[in-house]
Amino acid sequence: MTEPLRIAMIGHEFMGSAHSQAWRVAPHFFDLPLRPEMAVLCGRNPERTAAAAERLGWAEAVTDWKSLLERDDVDVVDICSPGDTHAEIAVAALDAGKHVLCEKPLANTVEEAEAMAAAAERAAAKGVRAMVGFTYRRVPALSLARDLVAQGKLGRIHHVRAQYLQDWIVDPAAPLSWRLQKDKAGSGSLGDIGAHIVDAAQFILGDTVTDVCGMMETFVKERPLAAAHSGLSGTAVSDETGPVTVDDAALFLARFGGGALGSFEATRFASGRKNALRIEVNGSDGSVAFDFEDMNVLHYYHGEDADLGGFRRIVVTEPDHPYVGAWWPPGHVLGYEHAFTHQAVDFVTAIAGGTDPSPSFADGLRLQRVLAAVEASAASRTWHTV
Amino acid sequence: MTEPLRIAMIGHEFMGSAHSQAWRVAPHFFDLPLRPEMAVLCGRNPERTAAAAERLGWAEAVTDWKSLLERDDVDVVDICSPGDTHAEIAVAALDAGKHVLCEKPLANTVEEAEAMAAAAERAAAKGVRAMVGFTYRRVPALSLARDLVAQGKLGRIHHVRAQYLQDWIVDPAAPLSWRLQKDKAGSGSLGDIGAHIVDAAQFILGDTVTDVCGMMETFVKERPLAAAHSGLSGTAVSDETGPVTVDDAALFLARFGGGALGSFEATRFASGRKNALRIEVNGSDGSVAFDFEDMNVLHYYHGEDADLGGFRRIVVTEPDHPYVGAWWPPGHVLGYEHAFTHQAVDFVTAIAGGTDPSPSFADGLRLQRVLAAVEASAASRTWHTV
Amino acid sequence: MTEPLRIAMIGHEFMGSAHSQAWRVAPHFFDLPLRPEMAVLCGRNPERTAAAAERLGWAEAVTDWKSLLERDDVDVVDICSPGDTHAEIAVAALDAGKHVLCEKPLANTVEEAEAMAAAAERAAAKGVRAMVGFTYRRVPALSLARDLVAQGKLGRIHHVRAQYLQDWIVDPAAPLSWRLQKDKAGSGSLGDIGAHIVDAAQFILGDTVTDVCGMMETFVKERPLAAAHSGLSGTAVSDETGPVTVDDAALFLARFGGGALGSFEATRFASGRKNALRIEVNGSDGSVAFDFEDMNVLHYYHGEDADLGGFRRIVVTEPDHPYVGAWWPPGHVLGYEHAFTHQAVDFVTAIAGGTDPSPSFADGLRLQRVLAAVEASAASRTWHTV
Amino acid sequence: MTEPLRIAMIGHEFMGSAHSQAWRVAPHFFDLPLRPEMAVLCGRNPERTAAAAERLGWAEAVTDWKSLLERDDVDVVDICSPGDTHAEIAVAALDAGKHVLCEKPLANTVEEAEAMAAAAERAAAKGVRAMVGFTYRRVPALSLARDLVAQGKLGRIHHVRAQYLQDWIVDPAAPLSWRLQKDKAGSGSLGDIGAHIVDAAQFILGDTVTDVCGMMETFVKERPLAAAHSGLSGTAVSDETGPVTVDDAALFLARFGGGALGSFEATRFASGRKNALRIEVNGSDGSVAFDFEDMNVLHYYHGEDADLGGFRRIVVTEPDHPYVGAWWPPGHVLGYEHAFTHQAVDFVTAIAGGTDPSPSFADGLRLQRVLAAVEASAASRTWHTV
Repeated sequence: MTEPLRIAMIGHEFMGSAHSQAWRVAPHFFDLPLRPEMAVLCGRNPERTAAAAERLGWAEAVTDWKSLLERDDVDVVDICSPGDTHAEIAVAALDAGKHVLCEKPLANTVEEAEAMAAAAERAAAKGVRAMVGFTYRRVPALSLARDLVAQGKLGRIHHVRAQYLQDWIVDPAAPLSWRLQKDKAGSGSLGDIGAHIVDAAQFILGDTVTDVCGMMETFVKERPLAAAHSGLSGTAVSDETGPVTVDDAALFLARFGGGALGSFEATRFASGRKNALRIEVNGSDGSVAFDFEDMNVLHYYHGEDADLGGFRRIVVTEPDHPYVGAWWPPGHVLGYEHAFTHQAVDFVTAIAGGTDPSPSFADGLRLQRVLAAVEASAASRTWHTV
Repeated sequence: MTEPLRIAMIGHEFMGSAHSQAWRVAPHFFDLPLRPEMAVLCGRNPERTAAAAERLGWAEAVTDWKSLLERDDVDVVDICSPGDTHAEIAVAALDAGKHVLCEKPLANTVEEAEAMAAAAERAAAKGVRAMVGFTYRRVPALSLARDLVAQGKLGRIHHVRAQYLQDWIVDPAAPLSWRLQKDKAGSGSLGDIGAHIVDAAQFILGDTVTDVCGMMETFVKERPLAAAHSGLSGTAVSDETGPVTVDDAALFLARFGGGALGSFEATRFASGRKNALRIEVNGSDGSVAFDFEDMNVLHYYHGEDADLGGFRRIVVTEPDHPYVGAWWPPGHVLGYEHAFTHQAVDFVTAIAGGTDPSPSFADGLRLQRVLAAVEASAASRTWHTV
Repeated sequence: MTEPLRIAMIGHEFMGSAHSQAWRVAPHFFDLPLRPEMAVLCGRNPERTAAAAERLGWAEAVTDWKSLLERDDVDVVDICSPGDTHAEIAVAALDAGKHVLCEKPLANTVEEAEAMAAAAERAAAKGVRAMVGFTYRRVPALSLARDLVAQGKLGRIHHVRAQYLQDWIVDPAAPLSWRLQKDKAGSGSLGDIGAHIVDAAQFILGDTVTDVCGMMETFVKERPLAAAHSGLSGTAVSDETGPVTVDDAALFLARFGGGALGSFEATRFASGRKNALRIEVNGSDGSVAFDFEDMNVLHYYHGEDADLGGFRRIVVTEPDHPYVGAWWPPGHVLGYEHAFTHQAVDFVTAIAGGTDPSPSFADGLRLQRVLAAVEASAASRTWHTV
Repeated sequence: MTEPLRIAMIGHEFMGSAHSQAWRVAPHFFDLPLRPEMAVLCGRNPERTAAAAERLGWAEAVTDWKSLLERDDVDVVDICSPGDTHAEIAVAALDAGKHVLCEKPLANTVEEAEAMAAAAERAAAKGVRAMVGFTYRRVPALSLARDLVAQGKLGRIHHVRAQYLQDWIVDPAAPLSWRLQKDKAGSGSLGDIGAHIVDAAQFILGDTVTDVCGMMETFVKERPLAAAHSGLSGTAVSDETGPVTVDDAALFLARFGGGALGSFEATRFASGRKNALRIEVNGSDGSVAFDFEDMNVLHYYHGEDADLGGFRRIVVTEPDHPYVGAWWPPGHVLGYEHAFTHQAVDFVTAIAGGTDPSPSFADGLRLQRVLAAVEASAASRTWHTV
């Protein structure tokens, strides 16, 4: 019998639901070295937290996150609350000896992220693990892309072009949610979705961004206030308006350490694009291209095919593809949430194996610095070094 | 608190795993009127069944399916065992007052299916429900296609072309699994995957096939025997060979009651196609097209768009799309298994609401008759009426 | 200096325009062994023929096709008039020693086609050449598909599925043009567009259809008469109606000599499909797929790519691809009319080289027999042997 | 009878061939107010020019372009020679009263372009016309995109992302052609292909770029010298190498006057992309997307379609689509060279109508300034205003 790994999760909205599904499902498809238990759910509002625990399948509901750190029956703290809470919780949890899985972005500021990375380093020395949740890495097609680059199949990398395109606030009448307020969200499209494409690009290339030049824009500067608490999909609005204090769109050019050029764009104003996380990498010997709207597919070109060459539409559902063997037969496609399950599997495996999971808090900090450099360069209208 | 609905599932291979995931997940995303409990798993081999119950999350493991019918703590029998066992189990379970969810195809012969439909009719009179598992109906994109036809957006339907293309036995060295033996599987590509496209077509059109003319072929007539029990993905082979007694491919033309023409093709020899369930419907006012390899997308054309017309690539992940509101934000795609969850939801809802779930056993029987007519017409080289 | 090859073309509507473009353009991109001269255009109406000659660039206009056969300054008769005129003109021209290029279908009946094939055989003995215009063979992507099959890259061929989908008469108010009248057009979708996919399939496979079972349908049985002569795109209608005497759609199953199974469908009622000539071939080692709406692309899969396998989107514009070297750099795509230019090049080359061009009249006859067998099988509701 | 318009063309390589095809074909598909005559071809080498005139169909061959300006039987000078020759020829031709069609980019420097625009302005006052050849504007799909924006269907424009991706020099062994030498080509990917996407973006938006921030890179800094004159596709190389003095890739961010954000990328190092001119425009009400590798298709989304919304794959071959009515029936696709024919048609029509053709030399100059600003900003690592 495997030992239990008792999870306490903080937050129960979109990310809380996704993480719950991961903990619920992972043990039934993967041979895990530890058995995750959905022990405690923590939220601010007692009624809503209790209801969420019932709905999401957590054994217990609490409202004081600090109480979790004193409990012997909690092994992992899984942080799904808004970005402005990450640093305090994560540092305290790590210092209390709890393994921490923290949703991205790691923090709202570089300073917070530095404190978190330092805490993770202290914790690692004591065998306590920390991981930041850049889930898209665990989409099999992106994982396969990374493998191809690592195996040298693309040769020397020249280009990365990455976009994360959504359209959910293109309507100027969409309400001023917390995601559009800098004090709560830290950042707009840049931190929310831009962070994902930077991580994906660095992950696939096995390289880091060193220099950036960015631009940011808030197309709709004033929006109606939400009518009251109206949940994830709440769109009831009041007559009053308030200022949008984050970016609607962020674009930047980049250079990688290894010499590749990057073009990045994150926007919530791309009408018709719902969740188009797209990335294309061109190397001297081949290329890969991906679009999350067709998430089970990786397009792959290699020059050796010569006159019979063309981008291959690889349906990434073969048993030997990353993570896929645990699921269904070929062609029986996976969905968004599977990447969260893969993340849970990798995290549990690292804890049990005594190894550092990836992406680490140090990775998260480095990424935060890229985002900060983009913001600074957008303000100064010049290139910045990360 | 909702009442429990105690499930006993028979069979624990591919379909057993998919159904388990559905029962596990459904209550956490949908508001169900009854609370499914994964009570008992039934299999032939005690050790393997016990291991499967542990892995899949069933509370208990048994080996005698008949014992389930006598238990008061079992409300539903969920049949995931091979087709040759369906009739006996389903009839007995319904007669014992258990609701039955039976994997497709309903049975291996029309006679068996008739007995099952009769049992379902008897049971319905007593408030006991029966449903056959044509899961693809519950893929949101196909459900949306049905809605569009029902709303008249496609006008009078002229054409259906449906293909189910796989390639998993194109290699002549692939072993002679039970799926290639008529006494166990009943049929080859026709019953296994052809059944799905017939159901999907009839579902979308809201119409039934009345006349067919078919052809069937076994390209590789002799195959190596499997080395022993080698599981779902077992490919170890012995030196001996045995005859393939089912069809590798089945094609047929069809007429629907409402006047549409149909072209159907099911094959396991379409190199490079992994699970390409494709269906296109053309009506006087518009068309829809679908390919399961891109399962979150429905292509939709309507003539009113005129010069700005073209097939719209609808990403079927909006809150108002069928089943989708329970899951993730737009563009966060679903996977193969979600359709099983939707099936579980619809079944539980029908039981609680006292309504007949769809597709019924009568639907399953009607479909079986279509398949039988295809076989007969292939043998006689003439058209047959269903 | 190259010798001239003096062309007389009969007919000046759609096909006449396409052939004119071919004769006009071919010498400027290909090194031809003979220099085509657009010498004489022949049509029924003197004014309209003279205007067409001026517009299309023919040196002379005449109305009596028989006069062409007596002239020493005519080397080639290029037949672009309706199908009911083909046999008489082609036989007379060949017997008069003129090379003949005849638009498809070769004739409206098998009997006519037999007479034409016999004339072509007589003519060949005297060094006079005959070719039938199945132009799609000369689309580079389809030519490449044929090469791949011929090189054995697809292995043993199991499946062909071919569709030719249009929608130009889905509107019941579309007028009763000559193409919808059996005495003039010979056949509807079967002969007009079905002929193309049968030829394409046989060409790519290097094999012939031996057995067929078909169905045909006229969805709209009565249509308004056209208001008067209203040209190619004339849509003015009168108040009277007349019967549609050809098929709107034709589908059939087929067996090839080499054992492949075929599924064919030709329709003018596929809403949203404009000129979707699609063909997919599955062999034991690989597959190809093509859609004319993306005519510069061939999708190619081969099994050796294993886990990195997928349909390659080959942009068939590389210098070594069939016919392509004469045109533009890679990625600078070709259009519909280029296939006519390639046809002209191949015909001129065969004449100069003293070889029989392909497809021959015998090929055209064989194809006519396939179409006749489809019609017969649709009438008798049984399979027919070609 | 229409009056002749006598053309003299300078240069006979790739662009010369494309322009010849345009002059040859245009009168046979379009009703032109003047009848183009392919009168004189001018090149540097007498033998090669005479051979090209023969091959391309020009009546006469000369080697001194200045002689053309003195002839009364030349109405138009069509400049297809390298960029470093444009200014001198165009200014002299305009001053001599000849209409001028000049290939893009207008010139190699802003100074040259200014002189040319001034000459065009002087000429216009005398009824002499000048146009620069940004041909992609005349691809029907891009022309339709412009119409949609002009009609307000996309609402307020927020984003443009445009890429021109090729891979023809990704091999470091590819020779140092004139296109890789700054003194001859003026610029690398920026001027050669980047110019096209800037023009396409400005054309579609009806707006101009005001601010840019760019980066440029030469990945392969030294290449083998070509063995001698080896033509368009010559790849024979010598043992010596020389420095590449132009950019292999150029990327830049941009702001448009109307507030849209732009992301531009031009590269010859995108393995597997042959001629992928891609552009996507997102507005508040809708979006369009285009890829030249599928040049007959425009993807169009508009928000009013709501839950049935999705990018429509418009096959831009309907009679009412821009330029298309002159060609073939729907679905019979066009190719690369058709845009040159459309350009010829528009130029002739403007000359005959006494209107200024578009894009004008002033447009070409403005575009040159954008490119110069990109270069300057890449050098200074800051944003530049155009």
